[in-house]
Amino acid sequence: MNIDMIQKAAIRLKGHARVTPLLSSPFLDEIAGRRVFVKAECLQHTGSFKYRGAFAALSALSPEVRSGGVIAFSSGNHAQGVALAARQHGIPAVIIMPSDAPKLKIANTRAYGAEVVLYDRANEDRDAIGEKLSKDRGLTLIKPFDDAQVIAGQGTTGLEIAEQARAEGIDAADVFVCCGGGGLTSGIALALAANAPKLRARPAEPVGFDDVARSLAAGTIQRNPKLSGSICDAIVTPAPGNLTFPILKAHCGPGVAVSDDEALHAMALAFSRLKIVVEPGGAVALAAALFHPEATQGEAVIAVASGGNVDTDVFSQALTRFG
Amino acid sequence: MNIDMIQKAAIRLKGHARVTPLLSSPFLDEIAGRRVFVKAECLQHTGSFKYRGAFAALSALSPEVRSGGVIAFSSGNHAQGVALAARQHGIPAVIIMPSDAPKLKIANTRAYGAEVVLYDRANEDRDAIGEKLSKDRGLTLIKPFDDAQVIAGQGTTGLEIAEQARAEGIDAADVFVCCGGGGLTSGIALALAANAPKLRARPAEPVGFDDVARSLAAGTIQRNPKLSGSICDAIVTPAPGNLTFPILKAHCGPGVAVSDDEALHAMALAFSRLKIVVEPGGAVALAAALFHPEATQGEAVIAVASGGNVDTDVFSQALTRFG
Repeated sequence: MNIDMIQKAAIRLKGHARVTPLLSSPFLDEIAGRRVFVKAECLQHTGSFKYRGAFAALSALSPEVRSGGVIAFSSGNHAQGVALAARQHGIPAVIIMPSDAPKLKIANTRAYGAEVVLYDRANEDRDAIGEKLSKDRGLTLIKPFDDAQVIAGQGTTGLEIAEQARAEGIDAADVFVCCGGGGLTSGIALALAANAPKLRARPAEPVGFDDVARSLAAGTIQRNPKLSGSICDAIVTPAPGNLTFPILKAHCGPGVAVSDDEALHAMALAFSRLKIVVEPGGAVALAAALFHPEATQGEAVIAVASGGNVDTDVFSQALTRFG
Repeated sequence: MNIDMIQKAAIRLKGHARVTPLLSSPFLDEIAGRRVFVKAECLQHTGSFKYRGAFAALSALSPEVRSGGVIAFSSGNHAQGVALAARQHGIPAVIIMPSDAPKLKIANTRAYGAEVVLYDRANEDRDAIGEKLSKDRGLTLIKPFDDAQVIAGQGTTGLEIAEQARAEGIDAADVFVCCGGGGLTSGIALALAANAPKLRARPAEPVGFDDVARSLAAGTIQRNPKLSGSICDAIVTPAPGNLTFPILKAHCGPGVAVSDDEALHAMALAFSRLKIVVEPGGAVALAAALFHPEATQGEAVIAVASGGNVDTDVFSQALTRFG
């Protein structure tokens, strides 16, 4: 896993992934007490950065393997990323989702052309279903984060940040990244270490689900005690990955944890000041930049708004409470 | 007024105005029955295209005239555009606003560094106040649309559309533009006529306030019978301008009028499918593209989302009714 893989992924993604803009507002600068820049990855195809990793992974497969199709486990952004990337490669995609997943997410994944296989969370074994399907139909599993090509794809976000920061005259800054399993954060960390070493990746997580921050502090992989109870559900994962953690350890600054209310508040500010739609899990990095000024130094900070797939009721809640 | 002025404005705006992205979603394509591309000008500084025209006009003034400061009448997007552009030029800006304008808009305009002068709509003459202030303090009036440099600035949006459409492989398309006085529409129309003649500008307006559509049909300037009663208040103006109308007449296809409900529906779809925040007046072009497929031909259509400065209650209304 190195910068070459990210640069090669960028070449494959060219003309497919969007170069998302780096946004800013004097109103956010005032709140944070320094310049704030937001990498609006919610504007990526399928509404999140996950499309980059999915496309990078699929495009890295040999044509023989790829033509057999792919399979993924996800009820969220990874599902949509894999579904669209598969359609663009003209291959079948099977997405295994819990039968109680939101209807809209199931419908969206199907609309991107994937076959959705539902399973009963209480009585069925997801992995067994996946293994049988892969074997019977020759499908290749696309993991959500602990895969080198997926990390390389997410890392292309970091290449863009390095270039866009340079254009904005940002010499040095912490780059807060919404962090679940660490695919996006490790990819960005690698890209920045190679191309803009004065920009330093910093994982941002929900309070109570800060496995990455604790793992970095301990020097070994730590797990979350629970996996539900945060509004930032998209980035709640059991622990950093075996591939992602060593990269995070080598290149990231300390993690920052933000509350659900801070995430909702950041969503409301992204609405009013940047005109972008950010989901709770995609807003934790901006929340860290705005509401934890003590956690960083320097005159500028960059936050990645990693996704915008939020239901109207949660979004309205953010606007009502913090708009 | 010609393409040279737009190209010169683009040079002055470089590094100041954002190159806003051209977004798309297969879900919108399905609704429209053709490919739909959205120029997300709501992501421009100050949340609307108005910043382009304001910056272009200010930067075109001679240093002597400019240093005296500028004045504008506006309670909305033009106010914020002029305020920010003036601050960036290091000159004073006075914005004349009705005393019953939304507090948030007054506060935002002040936050961008402008001096806000409030007047009583019922008992005071806005123009007299402006004239006295200009004279006493040597301020230059920046008109909202009927000014060649303002049109040139808005036209830079069209230069970007021409280039981005080429990159997307769009050979020919109608380009719907949210249209009030016609500054944005005429600027884009000129830019497209010169740089991408198979892309044709089409004004989009609210039903009942379609002065431009009627003027184009009649061949002479027609006025709106009333100036209130549309949720798309940002683009309700009495009539096309003396400068903008001849350009519109020379280069635009027929206008399209959309209902308030169609605008709100387009806002909800921009939220869920593109992850951008669009105000009602900024959504009429997308509404025309999505809900009036009979009004255009060809395999693709482009819509300009011209602004995103919407209050939370109006936005929540759009999500509740159409989300």
